[in-house]
Amino acid sequence: MSIAQNTETTAKLRCISCGATPDSAGQDFRCTACGDLLEFFFPGWTLDQLDGAKPRRHTDPKPSHHTDPAALKSLWLQRRSSRDALDQSGVWRFRELLPHIPNLEKHALTLHEGNTPLYHLPRCARATGVENLHAKHQGMNPTASFKDTGMTFAASSAHQGKFRWVACASTGNTSASMAAYAARGNMHSLVLIPDGKISWGKLSQSLDYGALTCQLRTDFDGCVQILNDLVRQKPVYLLNSVNPYRIEGQKTAAIELMEQLGWEPPDHIIVPGGNLGNSSAIGKALVEMRELKLISRLPKLSIIQAQGANPFYRCVHEFGGKKLEPMTADTLATAIRIGNPASWKKALRVLQVTSGQVEQVMEVEIAAAKAEIGADGIGCEPASAVTLAGLKKLRRSGFVKAGESVVLILTGHLLKDPDFTIKFHRGDLFTESRGATEATQAKYLQRAPIVLDANLAAVIAALDAAERNS
Amino acid sequence: MSIAQNTETTAKLRCISCGATPDSAGQDFRCTACGDLLEFFFPGWTLDQLDGAKPRRHTDPKPSHHTDPAALKSLWLQRRSSRDALDQSGVWRFRELLPHIPNLEKHALTLHEGNTPLYHLPRCARATGVENLHAKHQGMNPTASFKDTGMTFAASSAHQGKFRWVACASTGNTSASMAAYAARGNMHSLVLIPDGKISWGKLSQSLDYGALTCQLRTDFDGCVQILNDLVRQKPVYLLNSVNPYRIEGQKTAAIELMEQLGWEPPDHIIVPGGNLGNSSAIGKALVEMRELKLISRLPKLSIIQAQGANPFYRCVHEFGGKKLEPMTADTLATAIRIGNPASWKKALRVLQVTSGQVEQVMEVEIAAAKAEIGADGIGCEPASAVTLAGLKKLRRSGFVKAGESVVLILTGHLLKDPDFTIKFHRGDLFTESRGATEATQAKYLQRAPIVLDANLAAVIAALDAAERNS
Repeated sequence: MSIAQNTETTAKLRCISCGATPDSAGQDFRCTACGDLLEFFFPGWTLDQLDGAKPRRHTDPKPSHHTDPAALKSLWLQRRSSRDALDQSGVWRFRELLPHIPNLEKHALTLHEGNTPLYHLPRCARATGVENLHAKHQGMNPTASFKDTGMTFAASSAHQGKFRWVACASTGNTSASMAAYAARGNMHSLVLIPDGKISWGKLSQSLDYGALTCQLRTDFDGCVQILNDLVRQKPVYLLNSVNPYRIEGQKTAAIELMEQLGWEPPDHIIVPGGNLGNSSAIGKALVEMRELKLISRLPKLSIIQAQGANPFYRCVHEFGGKKLEPMTADTLATAIRIGNPASWKKALRVLQVTSGQVEQVMEVEIAAAKAEIGADGIGCEPASAVTLAGLKKLRRSGFVKAGESVVLILTGHLLKDPDFTIKFHRGDLFTESRGATEATQAKYLQRAPIVLDANLAAVIAALDAAERNS
Repeated sequence: MSIAQNTETTAKLRCISCGATPDSAGQDFRCTACGDLLEFFFPGWTLDQLDGAKPRRHTDPKPSHHTDPAALKSLWLQRRSSRDALDQSGVWRFRELLPHIPNLEKHALTLHEGNTPLYHLPRCARATGVENLHAKHQGMNPTASFKDTGMTFAASSAHQGKFRWVACASTGNTSASMAAYAARGNMHSLVLIPDGKISWGKLSQSLDYGALTCQLRTDFDGCVQILNDLVRQKPVYLLNSVNPYRIEGQKTAAIELMEQLGWEPPDHIIVPGGNLGNSSAIGKALVEMRELKLISRLPKLSIIQAQGANPFYRCVHEFGGKKLEPMTADTLATAIRIGNPASWKKALRVLQVTSGQVEQVMEVEIAAAKAEIGADGIGCEPASAVTLAGLKKLRRSGFVKAGESVVLILTGHLLKDPDFTIKFHRGDLFTESRGATEATQAKYLQRAPIVLDANLAAVIAALDAAERNS
């Protein structure tokens, strides 16, 4: 079985390395010629190459009525008042910018994803000196992470292809999202994880949504290898991030953001960098929107990694973007604890075309940034908070200026990792594993519970003390 | 300091027991005459009494342009295309049906709450024989529970009243929501909990949002007592569920639901019963919408309690609604583990006026129902799942018929209590604490991970086995 390339739209697949344009993708979503990743492109309204080097248009450069920017904006706005399930999705509402899936009404699996809020961050704005500072909170998706925007699209593609099984190797946000959409489509879902490395807290969602979870007696790479063998031999649809449908769905976060900003791009967008699929998707959407004249200029897209999981930072700063050296990743921001990011070449292209930067931040900076975002009433998982920590560094280096507008992309909800929050505020996070110096640095943000006698005077004294310290 | 009754609107406060209509509420939100709860009513367009006994209208019965049903529906629909923060809130979009807060633009604290999805539940529909079965998922609110819809409104009232502190006695969903909205309004928040009863997992959100948490050397009632003393003596705004502004905000879930259904009410709405504020709010909204001719008839609103926390069930079935006997509550559905519900009189009135029923369900029925909702791709906390378990009982008794339409109100997100899910699927939930019989009953829904050798054949065999068992 192969993933059919639909012929009703202009979207085509292309290898990001050798440029081959296969009519269909194999079930491992790899180029049959060179083995690199595939991506969708849209002849007629996107550039042949995204890297800016010698852009050549395809033979049909005239925009159709489907790509008239004013008409598109109006159509998408109208859909916000619709009661149709597709129109109510923050992904499917923008379907004109996505590859066409045949018989969409029958196959689209939607959980009302997208539609995520854009929050002003007043306290963080004061702390960074960037007054025009907002957060686009992708953790407000149905399964509480940004993965849903890509998963609704890729799972629908699996449903259209009549797959009975979908699969991924993940114990975290990906498996949660996959299992939810598979359940919506009456498909089975398979999660492969290494034996002995099970994190029960992270599995609660995929268990609830009915996934089959197999712990294999091997390491993570071994799981990925068996998964690739499986999808090549059996009708199982691969939902790891190499799947280009996921990237397409994730583009909509950027489209929705531009609509929220009245199609006036910010100066900077800052994204956490893990597997780098999200950076790639947002960058791809920005470039495509500029091609279609939906926006007039590109924001600078910067990517922030945890210092203990910084292969992309090293790729750019040590190796000039020539190679990515895989590493053993170590960070408490588990959602970006990735040592060998699949989409690094796509993300590199985005950095280049948008003139963004890549930064790295320390564990204690992440924890402090998370507490500062929380104090603005916005909860996020640790990986999301690297954006604020990174912004501080980009401010110090002068790359981001006080008068510029900045949007942070928050990728996961606070409840994805409550243990991190609790340990931080109890003071256990850094004393446990990171040393006393960092603990001291973070201390002023800690808000541990206090024990009091049960009388009014004691409580009033505590309120007064809190006011003095604030 | 007192909570000002605004004079720019028709909304007035009234005691639910003695009918007194004070011009303003004290900071404990209790009737100064008899000590019972207060509620808002709207002379001119709501009945004087909600219980259906001798309804008398106030002197100004003519609907103004503000209450013309077609105009309201059109206005609310238009706002869905607005970029204004108030219009984008699923609470503030319906502000014509809420008490007026002066200088709203300055004081409204919003996190893009409401806007929650209405999901069809295909598997649960088959399991219950009710084809037209939907779930309104209030767990998709910003802090992941229904509390946000009431909190945005009540916290805004506190902000308008220039309070620097807000407070509640809670370790769960209420404190999480309160702390988030307080942070948005630059107010301090205080959480009082009994010493020694701290549940760290539940505290992660309020810690993150910056609440001051005090553990008092007393029990829960002792905390409530000190809280009441505190708000009477100091300028601290009470955000427990006795606050009638919270009830008003929570009404919007029902308004939004009716809009999603094209203003065609379902035959049944089923709500979890804990403190009974949510049932009261939804019922109040239904009655008011009928009064305003936004809907033509009332759905039956039924309330489901856990058997171990069933004071309202006993109130209705043992005491004929004459009294509520407080009890020591015990259920794994912690969000409804409440032995002395504050809003029982309000909820009783809703049952009577909508002809609904109150049911109780066992722990194992809750766990099984939660797994069944999960298999539809929808994650919820255990308390939410009592609705499906209750529907099954109401089907068996004949109260809900196969051809009728039913909407379940899910109140919290799965991630509010991942431990419950994990223990259930590992098989630890009922063997641990509930006995072997219940474990057997729930077993067919369990989906524990399996350990395999790292080879393709083993994985394929597991897929085949899973298909056979499904």
